[in-house]
Amino acid sequence: MPKVSLKGQQMPESPIRKLVPYAEIAKKKGHKVYHLNIGQPDIKTPEVALNAVKNADISVLEYSHSAGFESYRTKLSKYYREHGLPIDTADIIITTGGSEALLFAMGSTMDTDDEIIIPEPFYANYNGFSTASGVKVVPVISTIETGFALPPISDFEKLITPKTKAILICNPGNPTGYLYSKEEIMQLAELVKKHDLFLIADEVYREFTYDGDKHYSVMNIEGLEEHAIMIDSVSKRYSMCGARIGCIVSQNKAVMATAMKFAQARLSPPTFAQIASEAALETPQSYFDDVITEYKDRRDTLIAELNKIDGVTVASPKGAFYCIAKLPIKNADDFAQWLLESYDLNGETVMVAPAAGFYSTPNVGLDEVRIAYVLKKEDLIQSVRILKEALHTYNNK
Amino acid sequence: MPKVSLKGQQMPESPIRKLVPYAEIAKKKGHKVYHLNIGQPDIKTPEVALNAVKNADISVLEYSHSAGFESYRTKLSKYYREHGLPIDTADIIITTGGSEALLFAMGSTMDTDDEIIIPEPFYANYNGFSTASGVKVVPVISTIETGFALPPISDFEKLITPKTKAILICNPGNPTGYLYSKEEIMQLAELVKKHDLFLIADEVYREFTYDGDKHYSVMNIEGLEEHAIMIDSVSKRYSMCGARIGCIVSQNKAVMATAMKFAQARLSPPTFAQIASEAALETPQSYFDDVITEYKDRRDTLIAELNKIDGVTVASPKGAFYCIAKLPIKNADDFAQWLLESYDLNGETVMVAPAAGFYSTPNVGLDEVRIAYVLKKEDLIQSVRILKEALHTYNNK
Ligand SMILES: Cc1ncc(COP(=O)(O)O)c(C=O)c1O
Ligand SMILES: Cc1ncc(COP(=O)(O)O)c(C=O)c1O
Repeated sequence: MPKVSLKGQQMPESPIRKLVPYAEIAKKKGHKVYHLNIGQPDIKTPEVALNAVKNADISVLEYSHSAGFESYRTKLSKYYREHGLPIDTADIIITTGGSEALLFAMGSTMDTDDEIIIPEPFYANYNGFSTASGVKVVPVISTIETGFALPPISDFEKLITPKTKAILICNPGNPTGYLYSKEEIMQLAELVKKHDLFLIADEVYREFTYDGDKHYSVMNIEGLEEHAIMIDSVSKRYSMCGARIGCIVSQNKAVMATAMKFAQARLSPPTFAQIASEAALETPQSYFDDVITEYKDRRDTLIAELNKIDGVTVASPKGAFYCIAKLPIKNADDFAQWLLESYDLNGETVMVAPAAGFYSTPNVGLDEVRIAYVLKKEDLIQSVRILKEALHTYNNK
Repeated sequence: MPKVSLKGQQMPESPIRKLVPYAEIAKKKGHKVYHLNIGQPDIKTPEVALNAVKNADISVLEYSHSAGFESYRTKLSKYYREHGLPIDTADIIITTGGSEALLFAMGSTMDTDDEIIIPEPFYANYNGFSTASGVKVVPVISTIETGFALPPISDFEKLITPKTKAILICNPGNPTGYLYSKEEIMQLAELVKKHDLFLIADEVYREFTYDGDKHYSVMNIEGLEEHAIMIDSVSKRYSMCGARIGCIVSQNKAVMATAMKFAQARLSPPTFAQIASEAALETPQSYFDDVITEYKDRRDTLIAELNKIDGVTVASPKGAFYCIAKLPIKNADDFAQWLLESYDLNGETVMVAPAAGFYSTPNVGLDEVRIAYVLKKEDLIQSVRILKEALHTYNNK
């Protein structure tokens, strides 16, 4: 009987999916489960995007250009320019989600056994894309004590080897909610220039910043043109995760020509979804204002409620819609499973993502969970109430 | 300045895309170009599929399950069973096109430097997916003289090394149009069982067979359950290439569990397109009957017309909608470029795909082109007329 690949065996399981069978158990018992575990917003997709698909006049649903619709790329370049990023149509390839953009970025810059440095905790699927690409993740630890700020640049520098090809950051961060300052980004820029590395910035949460903090993009740094690769997506911006549209952006011509070869091999990004994404660019500013207000409100509520629980530490997020909370427990994996399998408060429980899966260093973050504030305020309040009672029960078992 | 990956440098350019700039030149001159070079059918997409998307009631366009809609997978399993293939819902993962299914199949079964044996000429993007996966393609040559029948099984066997993990076939074949007989498939089945290999069958053209020939699937072979992996797609079946929906199918549980990890990393296949694909299963049989009649007619016309040209040899296709033609020229690359750049017959010319790009052995197939019969009969007749005149002019330059 033929065997699956070693790579396949090493492909990590999603840290969230592991809990899915236990969520099924909770649901079978008739318990209501509050999902604090996922990055799937409940925000409505802009109607202008949905209507464009409804009204599209298609008789043959054809492949698009491998780089995506020219019209979409041009409008997207205009969108970026309006947001202060000097990005041309030629600097953009439309991809099947930010996910595919990450794969193209890794494939275009790294070979088997090359190394990519990533501050941890990080988006868990970076592990999967790295394994799929044969690339080794070298983590730099950031901690809840500093609110997950950029680790000292010397921590990065001492990990650089001849195999290091890139540094990957997520800004604002999933799962940390941290927003890198201009100074932090500039430090990274100097480092990658000094060591001739790529700086890949996953900016899919770019629009989600609060308190007037401004997002600082790697595409905004003069002199970094040959090093900077940006990953973007419509998934969160327009709450259209199911579209599967993102893009890889760079002013490095060799990178774009290479990414284009990966793009050609898979023929084209999805056509319906490109129609929706192109139309989504017409979304009125009021939509974003409402969304940001809503998320800020949710964040403030969540953080305030969590801070009321004895023994809980939480890094207050400045962007995206996640936070990491340190709980007064030993093992968040066990706790998260127990919440679903064995606990309920009047027929209700919560699902959280154990944070260990977001670290690549073993045995770190064991007492931490990631909480996504993608639920209504009342639901967040109720979720934290359940969490509080559950912690009490769990610790007195 | 950081460099792109070696893998990226080795990623092949599509053999067709190379000609695109020359097609632009022809169009700038105002010439009409008949596209015999692409696998994009002009057939209408079934209305039931397009209407399902128009009528979908979506307010949040969410990620689907990473394996695809459960409802779609269940109906697809039913579709396969109606076509005589014993495929369960659990044996199917919905992918972003057959393209992604090929990537998942390679990633799940092969590691860096492993080898995959493929009869050539083959679908050119197999090269790209192999390079992206770090896998080495080992070609077995099939020839126009045998109509591209399966090469002797001893030709395969002598190429098997400890690094060989799989044999990949395309059935019916792009670019050959060859349909493997049950006997040929059974020979391959014995071979992979003997050497503990996977047999990956790209069956995206399964429905396109003519003259009453029956397609024989690798999913139909008892005892091959642990070895067989099928690649499928809605792209050609329903002329909805732009949907980007396909699937990977296997009864090997370890393969499916591994492919699932790749699927989870990229979150989900496109949602709109899954709605269309699920609805497409309701397409009435009359649609397929009409499509097959149309393609058979086109094929017969194309082959008859090509055979009228002196010095042209063509392998009569039994399936899919391509054929390979050997032309009385030295270099089809040069000829194809010349057709676009320098030739016209009363303001019209044709674009063909030089076949060398479908071989991985160097300097083979230099005088061959692939012709796709995705145009109306009149256009095919006119295209071959242009080709005939062009050959005359080219050879008397
Ligand atoms: C940090 C980060 N990057 C990339 C992605 C991929 O998103 P998509 O492929 O939907 O664009 C996600 C999704 O949750 C994410 O959180
Ligand atoms: C033989 C073969 N396999 C796979 C594909 C990939 O098609 P898709 O990704 O659109 O399903 C094609 C497309 O032309 C093909 O010809």
